[in-house]
This record gives sequence, C-alpha cells and structure tokens, in this order.
Amino acid sequence: MTITTHQAFKTLIHGEWNESQSKATIEINSPHKNDLIGSVPSLSQEELNDSIEKTVAAQDQWAQTSLQERAEILNKWADILEERQEDIGETIMQEVAKKKSSAVSEVSRTADYIRHTVEDALRIHGEVMRGDSFKGGSPSKIGMVEKEPLGTILAIGPFNYPVNLSASKVAPALMMGNSVIFKPATQGAISGIKMIEALIDAGLPKSLVTLATGRGSVIGDYLVQHPGVDMITFTGGTGTGRHIAQLSTMVPLVLELGGKDPAIVLNDADLDKAAEEIVAGAYSYSGQRCTAIKRVLVQDEVADQLVERITNKVKSLKVGMPEDNAVITPLINTKSADFVQSLIDDAKNQGASVLVGDKREDNLIYPTLLDHVTSDMKVAWEEPFGPVLPIIRISNENEAIELSNQSDYGLQASVFTKDTENAMKIADKLKVGSVQINAKTERGPDHFPFLGVKGSGLGVQGIRNSLLSVVRDKVKILNM
Amino acid sequence: MTITTHQAFKTLIHGEWNESQSKATIEINSPHKNDLIGSVPSLSQEELNDSIEKTVAAQDQWAQTSLQERAEILNKWADILEERQEDIGETIMQEVAKKKSSAVSEVSRTADYIRHTVEDALRIHGEVMRGDSFKGGSPSKIGMVEKEPLGTILAIGPFNYPVNLSASKVAPALMMGNSVIFKPATQGAISGIKMIEALIDAGLPKSLVTLATGRGSVIGDYLVQHPGVDMITFTGGTGTGRHIAQLSTMVPLVLELGGKDPAIVLNDADLDKAAEEIVAGAYSYSGQRCTAIKRVLVQDEVADQLVERITNKVKSLKVGMPEDNAVITPLINTKSADFVQSLIDDAKNQGASVLVGDKREDNLIYPTLLDHVTSDMKVAWEEPFGPVLPIIRISNENEAIELSNQSDYGLQASVFTKDTENAMKIADKLKVGSVQINAKTERGPDHFPFLGVKGSGLGVQGIRNSLLSVVRDKVKILNM
Amino acid sequence: MTITTHQAFKTLIHGEWNESQSKATIEINSPHKNDLIGSVPSLSQEELNDSIEKTVAAQDQWAQTSLQERAEILNKWADILEERQEDIGETIMQEVAKKKSSAVSEVSRTADYIRHTVEDALRIHGEVMRGDSFKGGSPSKIGMVEKEPLGTILAIGPFNYPVNLSASKVAPALMMGNSVIFKPATQGAISGIKMIEALIDAGLPKSLVTLATGRGSVIGDYLVQHPGVDMITFTGGTGTGRHIAQLSTMVPLVLELGGKDPAIVLNDADLDKAAEEIVAGAYSYSGQRCTAIKRVLVQDEVADQLVERITNKVKSLKVGMPEDNAVITPLINTKSADFVQSLIDDAKNQGASVLVGDKREDNLIYPTLLDHVTSDMKVAWEEPFGPVLPIIRISNENEAIELSNQSDYGLQASVFTKDTENAMKIADKLKVGSVQINAKTERGPDHFPFLGVKGSGLGVQGIRNSLLSVVRDKVKILNM
Amino acid sequence: MTITTHQAFKTLIHGEWNESQSKATIEINSPHKNDLIGSVPSLSQEELNDSIEKTVAAQDQWAQTSLQERAEILNKWADILEERQEDIGETIMQEVAKKKSSAVSEVSRTADYIRHTVEDALRIHGEVMRGDSFKGGSPSKIGMVEKEPLGTILAIGPFNYPVNLSASKVAPALMMGNSVIFKPATQGAISGIKMIEALIDAGLPKSLVTLATGRGSVIGDYLVQHPGVDMITFTGGTGTGRHIAQLSTMVPLVLELGGKDPAIVLNDADLDKAAEEIVAGAYSYSGQRCTAIKRVLVQDEVADQLVERITNKVKSLKVGMPEDNAVITPLINTKSADFVQSLIDDAKNQGASVLVGDKREDNLIYPTLLDHVTSDMKVAWEEPFGPVLPIIRISNENEAIELSNQSDYGLQASVFTKDTENAMKIADKLKVGSVQINAKTERGPDHFPFLGVKGSGLGVQGIRNSLLSVVRDKVKILNM
Repeated sequence: MTITTHQAFKTLIHGEWNESQSKATIEINSPHKNDLIGSVPSLSQEELNDSIEKTVAAQDQWAQTSLQERAEILNKWADILEERQEDIGETIMQEVAKKKSSAVSEVSRTADYIRHTVEDALRIHGEVMRGDSFKGGSPSKIGMVEKEPLGTILAIGPFNYPVNLSASKVAPALMMGNSVIFKPATQGAISGIKMIEALIDAGLPKSLVTLATGRGSVIGDYLVQHPGVDMITFTGGTGTGRHIAQLSTMVPLVLELGGKDPAIVLNDADLDKAAEEIVAGAYSYSGQRCTAIKRVLVQDEVADQLVERITNKVKSLKVGMPEDNAVITPLINTKSADFVQSLIDDAKNQGASVLVGDKREDNLIYPTLLDHVTSDMKVAWEEPFGPVLPIIRISNENEAIELSNQSDYGLQASVFTKDTENAMKIADKLKVGSVQINAKTERGPDHFPFLGVKGSGLGVQGIRNSLLSVVRDKVKILNM
Repeated sequence: MTITTHQAFKTLIHGEWNESQSKATIEINSPHKNDLIGSVPSLSQEELNDSIEKTVAAQDQWAQTSLQERAEILNKWADILEERQEDIGETIMQEVAKKKSSAVSEVSRTADYIRHTVEDALRIHGEVMRGDSFKGGSPSKIGMVEKEPLGTILAIGPFNYPVNLSASKVAPALMMGNSVIFKPATQGAISGIKMIEALIDAGLPKSLVTLATGRGSVIGDYLVQHPGVDMITFTGGTGTGRHIAQLSTMVPLVLELGGKDPAIVLNDADLDKAAEEIVAGAYSYSGQRCTAIKRVLVQDEVADQLVERITNKVKSLKVGMPEDNAVITPLINTKSADFVQSLIDDAKNQGASVLVGDKREDNLIYPTLLDHVTSDMKVAWEEPFGPVLPIIRISNENEAIELSNQSDYGLQASVFTKDTENAMKIADKLKVGSVQINAKTERGPDHFPFLGVKGSGLGVQGIRNSLLSVVRDKVKILNM
Repeated sequence: MTITTHQAFKTLIHGEWNESQSKATIEINSPHKNDLIGSVPSLSQEELNDSIEKTVAAQDQWAQTSLQERAEILNKWADILEERQEDIGETIMQEVAKKKSSAVSEVSRTADYIRHTVEDALRIHGEVMRGDSFKGGSPSKIGMVEKEPLGTILAIGPFNYPVNLSASKVAPALMMGNSVIFKPATQGAISGIKMIEALIDAGLPKSLVTLATGRGSVIGDYLVQHPGVDMITFTGGTGTGRHIAQLSTMVPLVLELGGKDPAIVLNDADLDKAAEEIVAGAYSYSGQRCTAIKRVLVQDEVADQLVERITNKVKSLKVGMPEDNAVITPLINTKSADFVQSLIDDAKNQGASVLVGDKREDNLIYPTLLDHVTSDMKVAWEEPFGPVLPIIRISNENEAIELSNQSDYGLQASVFTKDTENAMKIADKLKVGSVQINAKTERGPDHFPFLGVKGSGLGVQGIRNSLLSVVRDKVKILNM
Repeated sequence: MTITTHQAFKTLIHGEWNESQSKATIEINSPHKNDLIGSVPSLSQEELNDSIEKTVAAQDQWAQTSLQERAEILNKWADILEERQEDIGETIMQEVAKKKSSAVSEVSRTADYIRHTVEDALRIHGEVMRGDSFKGGSPSKIGMVEKEPLGTILAIGPFNYPVNLSASKVAPALMMGNSVIFKPATQGAISGIKMIEALIDAGLPKSLVTLATGRGSVIGDYLVQHPGVDMITFTGGTGTGRHIAQLSTMVPLVLELGGKDPAIVLNDADLDKAAEEIVAGAYSYSGQRCTAIKRVLVQDEVADQLVERITNKVKSLKVGMPEDNAVITPLINTKSADFVQSLIDDAKNQGASVLVGDKREDNLIYPTLLDHVTSDMKVAWEEPFGPVLPIIRISNENEAIELSNQSDYGLQASVFTKDTENAMKIADKLKVGSVQINAKTERGPDHFPFLGVKGSGLGVQGIRNSLLSVVRDKVKILNM
C-alpha cells in the first residue's frame, strides 16, 4: 500500500469506513511544499452524534472481553504498524513536514508503546482490604478493589506526533475496556486514519471507534461537551486545553499542553555535554515539541563558553526538506512561522543579539539563537514552537529557580551541574513535572510518569498512568 | 470550654482569629428549636483575597517541614479533638440537629481519621525507575518519582458531618504539605470553627489556613475561581458540585455529591438481615446522608415478607429531638422538609401505598415507608435527603440492574443474596463506586476507596486516596 | 531437526558444548517402551567445579547488561522454543511418557512463561524512602532501594515437566542478572539439553550456564554444597527437598515439593462439576503432578452420588501409550509403579473398595478409584504420584478440615460448595498454600503465587515471586 | 519499680511466670563492676517442650483476633515501655554496660519501633489477580492473595541491644498473628524479662509467649530444631548464625550476623564530615555494634589529613563507666576483651602504628586507632566487636572496592565523596546490603530495609520486611 496523491480518505463512523453524509471533505496540504496530499471527511455534529451513540453502546460488550482478547488485538495492531512504518511514516512526513527518518521511527516507537501498554495493563491487579485495618472496622468486611473502564474516551491528538501521541491515548483506552472517539489534528488526519485502519485490520470491532475528522470550529466544542464522553485526553496548545477544561463538566481530564522548559546551566557544568543536550533538545523537529528546551538560563561566569559551544552546533544543523532528513524544516503553517518571527523581531528590537539565524523562507525559519535575552522580551516567556532559542544570563542558581518558576508553564526543566545533590535540591524547588539532571528535557522513556503543572497540563501520562487515567475503582465489599 | 449561647465566633483569616472587617456576621440557628446558637463572621471577597494570599505564601515553608513535624501537629490535633468531643459534639448537635451520641462520636471518629491519615502519609514512598525498562531506554537514566504538594487546597464541607467530612479534607491536605482554604457549610460553621481552633491549638502555624466563613452566594464562586486555589475538594449536593466543576478551570477536583443508593433484595436473601441493614441504612440521621439507602428494589416473590419486616422496624424508630438521641430528628431546614414532603405527596398521588409515616411537624418528617412505588414517581429517582424510603417491586435481577443504572447518580448499592458469586457479577454491572454485599451502603471503613460515578462525584476519597488527591508526581531523572 | 535414536548428547560446561572428560555417559531409556533414546554426559565433581567457577565469574558482566539486552535474548529463546515445540515435545514424550499433545503444549506454554517473565522483570521498580517517615528520622536521608541479582543460581528440575519447570527456574534467574547451574532430572535430561540449546541459540553467552548432567548420587550433594552457589531452587520430592535443606547452609532456598491435595466436597456442591474437576485433577498425566488431587473428602449425604459420577468418568479415561495421547500412560519407572501398587494393595487389604482399576501392566497402572478409604490406610496419607484416587467419606466440614490438616503436606486444596463465603472460611483454616473454590487444584495460571506449606515446600513461586526469589535489596542512602 | 539487687526473676513458661522446675538459675553479673544483678531461671529441654506446645496451641486463636485487637495490645506495650524506660534502661546498663542515656533511649526507641510496626501491619493489604492476565488464563478465575501467620516464631536476641533487637522480632511476629518463643541473650536476660513483663501487662495472653531463659549450651540447639518452630529470627554472631542454619531444616530464617563495614574515603571527600561520621560509627558503645564502622579505606593523598582528624576525635572520646555516660565502657566479657587485644597485638607485631589507645584495664579496652594496617593483619578482616579501628591506605577506588568485597562479611559500607553519582556506581559494586553515601553505617531509620549478604546474614529486616518475614501468602481462588 502506498500513498496515492489526492486520495479521498474515508473515516470510521457508525462502525464502518464512510464518507461524510454531506460528502464534504477537508483537503490536507503539505506544510513544506503546499501540495495536496489527500482529503478527509468533514463530519457534521449530527452524524457524529449517531456514531458516538454506537460507540458508546459498543463499549459494554468490549469491557467484558478478557484481557487476553484485547491484548491480542492490540499486539496485532503493533505488528501491523511496524509492517506499515514506511508508508505511514511517509504520510506523517508529508502532513507535518517532519524529517522522514523521525517520521518512520515515530511509527515503530508507537508499536513499542502499544506493546508496553498491553503488558502494563496485564499487571494492574486489584487489592483486598480488610475492615479491621481501621479503628472500629470489622475483619469480616472484605473489600475487593478492582479497576473498571470509564466508558467512552475522547482522545484529541496534536499535529506534531500524529501517530505516537494519538496511539498513546487510544491504546490504553481500548486495552482497559473503553470505547474511543478519536479526533486527530487536521494536519495529521490522514496519518490518524491510517493508524486506525491498522487497528481495525488487527481485528478491533469497528463500532468501538468513532474517528471524528472535521473542522475543529465545527465539531470541537460539540465533542467536548457530548454527554456520551466519559473522559477526555488531549495533547495540544495551552489555549485549547484551557478551553476544553472550561467547556467540559465533571469529566476527568488529562491535558498535556505547552511548555517553556528551561535548561539551567551552572558554573560547574560539563559545558560540552550541556551544549550538546541543549541543541538537540531545542531544535529537533524545528522546536515543534512540547518538551523542547525553550530557554537557557546560564550563569554569567560560563555563559560565553557555553554560548560559543551552542553557536557552533546550531550553525551545523541541517536545514531543508523533510524528505532529505533535515532537522530544521518548514513549520506546520504560516501562522506559526509568523509568530516565531514576531518573537525574534521583538527580541532584536529590545536588544537581544542574534548569534545565528533570523532568516526565513515562507514557513521555513532558520535555526535562530538569541543571546542576552532579558525578562522584558516576549521570547523569554512565550512558547515559540519553532527553532528559536533564547539565552538568558543569570548571576546565581536562585535567579534561575525564580525565572523558571515565573513562567505560566511548568512542564520540565534541565539542570546541568556536576553536583548531583545540589541539582536534586534545585529540582525540588522547580515548579515543573520532571527535572532532567544533565540531560535534555524529553517525554520518554515512555514508562516514566509525564506531567505538567500550571499551564502545562493536568493529570499524568506515561504508560502506567495513562492506563490508570481511563479506569476507576470498583469496590466490592463482602460482609462475611 | 462550653457553648455560650449567642457567642460571636471569630474566624481564622490573615493568620489570626478575626472578625470580618465590616463586622458583618451570619447568625446560626438550630434547625430543631430555631434558637440562636451563635454567629460567625460574614467575610467579603476582598478580605478573603488578602487572607488567601497569605495562606498561599505560607505553604512553601510548610512543605519543607519534615513529615514528623507535620505528623506531630496533626496527631496533637486528634488528641485535642478527642478531649473536646463533648463540647464540639454538642455544637454539632445544635447546628445540624444530629442526635447527641452520633454528634459526639463524629468527633472521636474524626480523631481516628486524622491519626490514620498521618500514618498513611508516612508510608507514601517514591519509586525508582530505570530507563531500560522500556525498549530503547538506557539503564543509566534513573527516574526518582516522589510526591509533592499541589499548593493550596480549597476544602468545602457539607452540613451533615461538619467536622468529620471537613477534617477528612483538611488533614490530608496539611499532612502532605499544602495550605488550606476551608469553607464550612453555614449550618455547621461553628463546628468548623471549633475544629480549626483545635488545630491551631495543636500548633499549626495560623497563616496556613484561611477559614472562609460567609454567605455562599457572596463568596462561593469567588473562592472556586480564585487563582490561588490549586485543587478543590467538595462534599455536598450534585447541583453545587456541577456548578463548581463548571466554574473552575484546570484545577483538580474531588467531588463527593449525592446518591440514590439502591438496596437490591433477591429471592434468596436473608430477609431479616436485609431489613435490618436497610432500615439502618435508610433512616439514620433522618436519611440526611449521601450513602443512605434511598430505594429498595425487591423481587416480587419476597417483597411482602421484606416489607413486613421493614415496616415493623420503621415503626419502632425513635422520633424526636437530637438531645434525646432520637434517630429521626427535624431536617436541616424547612426547604428540605418541604421537598421531602413533595416527594411523598407525588408518590401518594400516583398510587404509592404509605405503610408508615407521612406525618410532619415543622421540619420534622416522620419516618415514611412507601410501597408499590413505580418509575413514574419522583421518589423513585430523586434524592430526598430525608426519612422516606420507596419500595419498588421488581420481577428479576436484570430489572434491578436496569433500574439502578437508570439513575443519574452512581454512589453505592447494596445487594442482598446468599449467592455471593452472583452478587459479585451483579456488582460488576452496577454503575456505582462501591457495592455492599449483604450490608447497608456506607462511607466507611475510612481506609476503603470511596467514590461515586455519574452525578455522584469525581475523584476518589478514602484515606490513602485523599492523600494522593492533594499531591502530584515530581520526577527527578539522573543521567549517569 | 528430529530425534536421532541413540544420539550422544553433549552438555554445556566450561562455556562450551562438551562431552564429559571421562567420556562417561548415562543412557536414557523411555519409560514406556524401555528403548534407548540417547545418552548424556555423566559429569564428575572436578569438571563441574571448573565449569561452575566459569559460570560464577561470568555473572558479573551479565548483571551489568541492560534489561533490554537480557529481554531480547530471553524473548528470542521463547521464539525458538515455540519453533521447536514439535521436536522438543517429542523428546519429552519419549523421556517421561507424557502424552504427545501435552508434551508439545508444555513447550509452547514455556515460551509464554518466559515472555511473561521478561515483562514482569521490566516492571520491578525500586523504591525511594525518606528518613522522616520514621520518628527521629531526617528528611535529608534518602534511601533508594533497588534489586540486585544474588549471583549464581542452582536450578534443579523434576522429571514430570522437564522443560516447563526448568525454564521457570532458569528464565527468572537469568533475566534478573544471575548465572545458572542447571541440573535436569536424569529422566528429562535430553529435554533439558534441548531447552538449553535453544537458549544458547538465542544468543546467551555460553559460560552463563553450567548444565550439570550426571548421576544425582555422584554430583547432587556436591552441587548443593558448592560455595559458588548463591541460591537453590528445586522442584521434586519432599525427601530430596528436605535433604537439600539439610545440606545447604545460609543459602536462600525455594523448594516445591510433594502434596496430598484434598478435594473437599460438601453437601451443597455441584456434583457434576466436582466430579469433572476431580477426575481431571487426579488423573492427568497418570497423577504424576505435585498439584494432582490426591484424595477426595466427601460428605456422607452426597458421597454415593459423587462417587457414581467419578466412577463413570474414570472408566472412560484413555489408557495406553503417550504417542496415542492416552491420559493414563506407564509411570516414570518400575519403582514408582511398585509403590503405587503397594498403596492399592494396602488399601484393599484394609477393606477399601476398588471401584475402578487395580490392574497393572509393567509400569502401566490402570486408573484406580478406591472408595471407603479410612485413615488407617497408607493411601489416605501418602502421595502415590500415580493414577490412584482414594475416596474418604466424612460427616461434616470440620472433619474435612481436620483430615486435610493432619497431612504432612500442605500444597493446595479444592473446596466444592455453592456457598462461596463458607468456602472462603474453610480456606482460611486449611494449612495449604492455595485453595481452589469449585475447581481442581493446579499450578497455573503462572502469574499467581504458588507455594506449599509444611512438607510441601519453602518460598513462593509464580512468575513475579520467582523473579523476586533470585534478587535481594540493595539500599543506597543519600545524606543530603 | 526499681532494680532490686539479687532479685531472682521468674520467666514466662506454660503461660505463667514461673521458676524453672529444677529451681536452677543463672546468675547475671554486670560486665563492668562484676557485681550480681539478679538471676534468671535455667530451663530444661523438657519443661521448654511443654511450654512450647502451649505456645503453639495458643496461636490459632490469636490469629483469629482482629488486627485492631492486636494493635491495641501492642500499642499499650509501647506505652508501658515508655513509662518504664528509666527502670528498664537501668537494667540494660547494668547487664551490658551500655552508657545510661543510650540504654534509656533504647527503650523509648523500642516503643517507637513497636508503634510503627503496628501501623505498617495495618497497611499490608492483599491482592486480587485475574486469571486472564496470563496467556490462556480465564477472567473468571479470581485469585485473592492475602497474608497469614507462619505459626510460632523462635526469636533469639543479642546482648548488645537486648530490648530493641528483641522487640523488633517479637512485635512483628505477634502483630501478624504468630505466637513466639523468645530466647534472650544470657547477658540481657533480665532486660528481656522486663520487656516481656511489659507486654503481658499490656494484655497479651500469657501462653502466646514462651520466654526461654537458660544456658545456650543446654537449650540452644534444642530450640532451633524443635518441630513446633515455624520460623527463626536471630541476631548475633556469624558463627552461631551459621550453626542455626545448619541445624534447622526447611524453616524460614532471618539472620542478622556480623559485619566488617568499611568506610571508603576518596580524595574529594569532605574530610571533617568523614572523620566525624567514622568516629561516631566506629566507637559508639565501644564498637559492640554489627553496623559499626570496622575499617577505614582511605586514599593515600588524603590519608594523613583524615587520620589527623580521626586521631583528634578518638582522643577526646569519654572512657569509663556506663553510669557516667562514657562512650567507651568495659566490653561484655573478658573473652571479648582478650580477642580485641589479640587483634591489636597482631597488628602491632606486623608493623601497624598505634595512633591512640592500646591500653586495657580488665574488660575495658581504651579506644584504639591503628594506622598503616595491611591485608596481612587479622584486624583488617576480623570483626573486633570492640573499640579498635584500622586505617588501611589505598591507592584508588578500585582497590577500595576489591578490599571491601574480599571480606567474608557484607553488611554495610560508607562511601565519602562529593561526587554522588560516582558514589552510587561504587555502591552498585559493593557486595553489601546497604551503602551510606557520606554518612556512617547504621541500622536505622528502622523502616529502611536492613540486610546483610555473605556471612552477614540471610533475609531482610526493617519494619515492613520484618512483618513480611513472619507471614506467607494464602491464595484463595474463585472460579466464577
């Protein structure tokens, strides 16, 4: 199976692969060549409602299948994704302008993710509690606490990892016995369709998934507020996340949103290592990653040395087309590129030094390194989601902690120092989910808990936590 | 220390015991005698804001105290509550018309709750994860996952257990290193003040708590939306809970709301046992409990026998004043009594048989048993929060499951049968948090997970879960 | 690859496939045809000592490989075993006269066992403990508790599941970073060699395993007392187990020994179900299973009905050769058959009724059912490890509990009754590791804890426990 | 209650406080004044056998009491010990010549230990496992895994912490539902009797404990091999531990034996801190602690500086009588003092420098510091259990690891360095149970796992592990 240009993809609604009732479609163009890749159905609220009802109704029987039955289907899904990694990787590359090798490995890593999800789920056991553990309680009161699925999960994926970050929502939901409404990002919808196609080919009953392609403006709020939805898991921008949180009521949420991850570099850091990690952390996939390093807070004494090392590395980053495995490729759309440019311009206007970059061709922003950035500049606080990195010089570690914590975001942070115990103490003070000591911020390995605080999200992901986010306790109490 | 009638209580704001700046107060009258018990400060949004800022600021240092320091203060709190159980129990009795012995034991059980909370907290250890547990991960990546406090917790308590259900929010929050904004129910505010007084007497730094007495209409929404609030834990009505969920944004919520707990009685049940549990479950504290049994679903074949047994027991329930340890006492206010009466009237009008009760004196609704209740009657679906129990006759267990699950609520259920395995299968099908097999529904023992589904709530309580609800993961990753 | 008659197999010593230095071999004959299957090296103590030193030395580096490296090799091992299930199954059948289909499925189930072992091992995380969880402790004392391998594990397998019960010792040992000395049962040694061959073909460094083929009388005690051995895991007879326990000193032991599992059948049992489970539990593989049902304790009132049902089923058991997939096949050797016959004879002499069987052809004991067995008869207490089942009639459940607990063994028990809660109460009183309620005793599913008390063993198996049995805590304490 | 000199103490046998049947006693003299403190019954094997039978028989009913009942008795025990800390501390001081303040605090710390044990035990919950977590398993197979007591525990305590290290065996055993045979060290027997007296005063049924006072040579082996014993927990010398391991058969053992804990001091260590920790770790209670620091391995470059710091501190240690709270007091007996002196003499003869000490008055060995100790000297390898510390100079950290691991012991180690990650890597290579980074070796805090490898022990202690060491799994499997 290969990509056919201009293919009109069907979506999975009402338990079948269908066009939209109105035949309306959305055309998907590549960000970097702006050529048409294909089209996806643009669904209406009404037909979505019908499909969701089917998906809600299908959940009950699915929840009664054995863990082994579900495991078998999901493992088969992983196998098929691996088989099709070239084709799906190609689609990802076209849809989101990610370099080909990363796009392909995204698919194979997704297979690993699914398999690990299956095995983790097999090991979520229940608990037996005795009443007499508590004062006044009776030993003849025996509580059996097990997990049951929440029902129907609304999974909303982002554009930047259209397969990996979608499967990491869909797989745990299904494995624990839920049905799924999956809304892919528009840019990434074809990848999403292919991902779900593999799942159905693996044997999943079709009505268990409603694949909600369509314009966010038309169906987004509708989905979030649909009474059939028992839980929402979303990855995307903080604005949208906050909007979802406002619209939904008494529905558990897992939100993974934006970040402004600092790399704090102290005087005693290994500067070569720090520079290497920072550049990899900041510029991969043109910085379009929530866990990208988005600011460097470096102590004055070593700032020049660090900046020199970073500058050299940034200069050597490969810029170009995803087909050529360039690290820096055109951004997802013009609006994004405009925003990134505006941050650069603002910084320059306020006196930042441009050490590298500040060059643009359409959506392609060349890797940009800004030194002497101050708190007055937007780029010190806002998330570019593009290949621009501000260097902020600080006088001591307390200033680093303060600047880090002033952010509206709180996803991750890196601390570079040879004094591990000090790094741990700093980590305790940083208002973020995770702190990497002497390494770049990153989402993985996928079994680690992954969470953001403040504007960076709600709830916890990471495989085991993602499984736990789609179930609730069921307590059965014997009174013997 | 004894209750002084008409005492004007101060509240804890700005780290001190204060009146409101405006000197405005709310007078608290007893529900059953309608005499004035005392008054509490009626705070304004402005002064609350100032106090909350102090409470938010105080949290950081508190989080750095050792577990042993916090344990010592909370255990001392428990000791003081136990010492003052007579006095505080008297206040509870006066404020919410709960029979004296229950009011006193509420306080002593609260001391047990706090001590168990402390000991559970001492045993929440972290996890060490190695990167190479996941494919492609490195063994030199070592994740240390520990818990850290969320920050400042807004705890909103209900009237029916003004001490126990408030302390069960305040104690875990403080023990895990958070500060607290505590809003007691108006009817219950004096009990809440005395509870906090004991806490301060135990040595808690005063600025760690803002005690938000005042009119819900004035300060309720303000508190829920306050940016200083990092998490909200609420027990109360479903309407209010839903309102809180709508107002708050990206703030973790634990909501324990209403219920319509069914007692399902099958043909092979021990009817004596069932009747005993049902009457205790339905009528204690006049049914003003979220986990009260609120409907009986009994199989036709044994319905008459069960109803006879229930009838006899209901007739012998002690009705009267809380001072006399009556089980059935006046309801919390006239509006509540009116509502309960309206449910009785509606049922009667639609053909239900009144087997006992249907008698009212002001707020005092006599214990009422309604037979032959059908799905058309309001009392089949609505939560009376009063001493009225509808009997609904069913033909088989599937009907019982269906009727149970049609409810907007999903807190708990009881199943009475000698066939335990069948009871467990039925339990799996009931959309509720907990299922009691051959016993009444109830909140305790307090270390069991406690949760509701659908309109009955969000999140999980029970001591360990309550502790986990006020912390988040902090991941520190060594890269060796 | 097919079995070549008379093949002289090599064994794995000194990190290579070798003959014994003396060229001495042990000839392996089939129990049922008494024809020569092949020969295995008969090792001396001296050459074993040399090999063990290599295996001990190899462990250090193995322990430093990543979990993923070990997982890959073990998963590959599982794949190869699955590919070779026909061939290895054929060998098992020939060596131990187990019916072909069971022998083959033993191999494929072993592959499943290994894979599950790998995945469980990936999920054994460490713990972070803070000093201030204990009174007087400091929060700056941070304990990291992780698991480290014990060193070199001596795994001694039984004849009855020569692949499955050997791999269930070898796989966890290797996965957790240990090296292994594996001593197969003589009858089963070729199966063991083929199993290890698959492991080496999967990529395991050869020096990590010493495959100790040889006469137990020559090398058994030597191995058990070897200073290079850090832990012993043994499945086999109680006599041998006890001998190992006496010889070894300060070496952790896991012993899975004999049993005398009772099936307790109460008046309200489902007798059809009970009879079916009992016959399957007692006679599979001619009763040569430690978890076989080895006595029936049935209440007088239903005894005749149960016995009739069992009789009918026993009569229809297929008797014959393993090649024909007979359930009842010749026993492992003449000594075993003699012993079983002696138990039958003793029972007959003391007045037991022979309902079925009491027929013998060489090692082949026909399935035998003895009724009215009393406490005076040997068969009431001794483990036949053959196809003979005694029925003991009892007057009430207390007698059943007493008789059960009088046994020197304490592996498992079955309780048949419709009253599950009563069954649970009885289970609490039975001095055994596991109690099956309304099903036959059995080892699996393999992730359940599996243990015996009294003469039935020491330590716990079941996949996770087996992994934990080959590691110890390593505590690293930071003092910050 | 005060110590009466020459008091003839009774012991707890046959469920009563009794003399021995023969009236034989053992006189207990103080090590430091050699005056008679009192006498304890010298029991015979026969009367012990009778008493053990009673204690075994009493266990069944005790196991059926609720956790709360047991908790109440044990917490009361802790309260009484605290009340009697002065008196019992005085006895400890007299019996084992430990400085008074430490002896008293040993008792109060024991109360903390017991309370923590109780609370940990309340939190040992069971597990619910589903059959379908494993391939081929059925979801209708539900395993409930809970803990049950082993039966009767033989607890053998050491002289050096006659209350703390005895209660840490007795408390978990009783709390989990076992009965106990407690054999105190002869020197420490009166302390042990007073400890048990407090337990009985707290309400423990008397027959649950057999207090086996008597000569080890007469009753030691008998106890270890008694068929009524279901598990042995011992703290003491490696020789005795090994002897117990040899005598006992198929009985779970927890052995905490000797140690030769090294303090490894690297070039980048904080030498002041290191010296302080080393001296406290080596000389407290005259070095009569299994976790005492028993050798210093210091890098050449900083050896002189470290040695100077240690020398100064050792010189200022208070030497004298326990009544005067001296750190260095007479050793437990003359044999011990002779042995310590022989180690000093051997070292001197082979060229070690005596920096401090080498002075003796009867049992009183003055604190001795030996420099330039080499591998040829006994004091480099043997455990003095006295106030002598050898300094061994090393050239690099690998030598430190090698020397550490050459020991027959493997209890704990300290590593002093500013490079925490390196310390962690070294810790991974040290064959010991625990590694303290930048602090002295020590048993506590008591909730941390505590274990030795090689000659230092078997099994794991630390409160939760001690509780788990006296129970086993009981698996109940529903087949629905």
